[in-house]
Amino acid sequence: MQYDLIIIGAGPAGATAGIYSARQKLKTLIISKDIGGQLSKKAVDIENYPGFKKISGMDLADLLSEQLKDNGVEIALTGVKEVKKDDNLFKITCDNGKTYESLAVVATSGAKPRELGAKGEREFVGRGVSYCALCDGPVFRDKSVAVIGGGNSGFESALFLSNYVKDITILEFGKEVKADKENQEHALKSGKVKVITEAKVKEIKGDKFVESVIYDSPEGEQKLEVSGVFIEIGYAPDTAFLKDLAELTERGEIISNLETLETKTPGLFVAGDANKGKYKQIIISAGEGAKAALSVYEYIKKNQK
Amino acid sequence: MQYDLIIIGAGPAGATAGIYSARQKLKTLIISKDIGGQLSKKAVDIENYPGFKKISGMDLADLLSEQLKDNGVEIALTGVKEVKKDDNLFKITCDNGKTYESLAVVATSGAKPRELGAKGEREFVGRGVSYCALCDGPVFRDKSVAVIGGGNSGFESALFLSNYVKDITILEFGKEVKADKENQEHALKSGKVKVITEAKVKEIKGDKFVESVIYDSPEGEQKLEVSGVFIEIGYAPDTAFLKDLAELTERGEIISNLETLETKTPGLFVAGDANKGKYKQIIISAGEGAKAALSVYEYIKKNQK
Repeated sequence: MQYDLIIIGAGPAGATAGIYSARQKLKTLIISKDIGGQLSKKAVDIENYPGFKKISGMDLADLLSEQLKDNGVEIALTGVKEVKKDDNLFKITCDNGKTYESLAVVATSGAKPRELGAKGEREFVGRGVSYCALCDGPVFRDKSVAVIGGGNSGFESALFLSNYVKDITILEFGKEVKADKENQEHALKSGKVKVITEAKVKEIKGDKFVESVIYDSPEGEQKLEVSGVFIEIGYAPDTAFLKDLAELTERGEIISNLETLETKTPGLFVAGDANKGKYKQIIISAGEGAKAALSVYEYIKKNQK
Repeated sequence: MQYDLIIIGAGPAGATAGIYSARQKLKTLIISKDIGGQLSKKAVDIENYPGFKKISGMDLADLLSEQLKDNGVEIALTGVKEVKKDDNLFKITCDNGKTYESLAVVATSGAKPRELGAKGEREFVGRGVSYCALCDGPVFRDKSVAVIGGGNSGFESALFLSNYVKDITILEFGKEVKADKENQEHALKSGKVKVITEAKVKEIKGDKFVESVIYDSPEGEQKLEVSGVFIEIGYAPDTAFLKDLAELTERGEIISNLETLETKTPGLFVAGDANKGKYKQIIISAGEGAKAALSVYEYIKKNQK
């Protein structure tokens, strides 16, 4: 089956690219394991998406999903194994065993939670170690937990966890936390959150389940007794499958022409968190999705002449 | 009164910059003649803003306005006369006679409707010549009208006008119309719209009110009898007041670093339609507004150290 455009990913960037592409009458397929991307995993309501005072990530994901359907965008719920380009045609092989073809591709594959790399981390995944406060937080009712990372997602997770757990210690590697003031205030107001900076986590310990976190501090090695460890040290772009077609930064972000969002491979565009950029925000991703789809439209029109 | 950030304009870019800036706890003022910018003048519902299947420009403008209030953003409803920078402080003189000061400025002043430059155009403004179908369309009930320009706004205006007028002739200067396929189909489906390409309008004629449009075609000079002429040939950036502080393109768009949206003047940022960019879309403007506000936050933090 040949499409005009295949979009890889269905977060805010992918969904917006889909809406725009379909409205340009391009035959469009989205390939993604889920709809909503990181939206569906947000631990607190979204308050900075223009047009909504407050909306849950789930609800916004549902709205995008409906809007895609209304615009007739096809969706294949599967993962991407490989992307190739032959003779001006992209060939995308998927986990479902199928291969889809298209004239252009927009990569909106976003990012995956970054691993800490501490001893015990992988061993205790699902037994106290989590990368998703929204998914796993309620399990830790009345327990003490640690959140690793003092960025926005660390504080957002702490705020969400404060509805359930006894107390939360945020362990931040650097000398200062990096979260927005607003996020810091919200979380600290709960009275359950304590922040320790210059805490370099080395090990997660336990028996069957997590029992403590060991970290280095300027005062030497410390032990924090907790039942849960939420790792919130950011996301790593999910772009390895494109390394032959696109230039990547050291962090794995895709490099593109910022005016058109086209990569070094003609017809391959990028939008959202997979794109190189300082600021990862829902509204920025959505804007880039629209831009990429409009660039695709011009690319296809030009190549048809 | 000194602010951290002054945003000039309150369309999708300015409103989003305001929401983001306030949430970063920056003392923020928006200076704008209205809230919503071009949104409030949109002749048809918006169907490509992610999160809303369909929303009127007015309604989206109202939502942005409420969200600004909720976030505590101050608004001065006035026009900007002059922007100066002395000693790292911006000084903005306004039509209301006041001068406001700030550490940083985001220009989201958008664009104004472009004039055709035809004979009679200025003379008949308000007497048959209009730049806003939404504002003036209903006046032309059961009359014949012309829309000058075959881009998206031309077709969107024609679609809106089809609810009221007898018939609409779209006069397009080029060999092809440039509107999205979707917009073309919508408008043509009304059965009231006719498109003439290669029509170079030279004069708008009438007595007290518009009576006809004179244009050159490959077959020679033509006369089209109409009571109304809607000029939809795009927008010109409203940036002249920044020409000393920012580099402008020939069209008047502001040139900025596309990663930070900072102009050649440190502390002066740009977002939305006033920014150089191929695609002018609500969602793209909103994304840029967020990016500019986050860049401002970093700029201010850096300069405070």
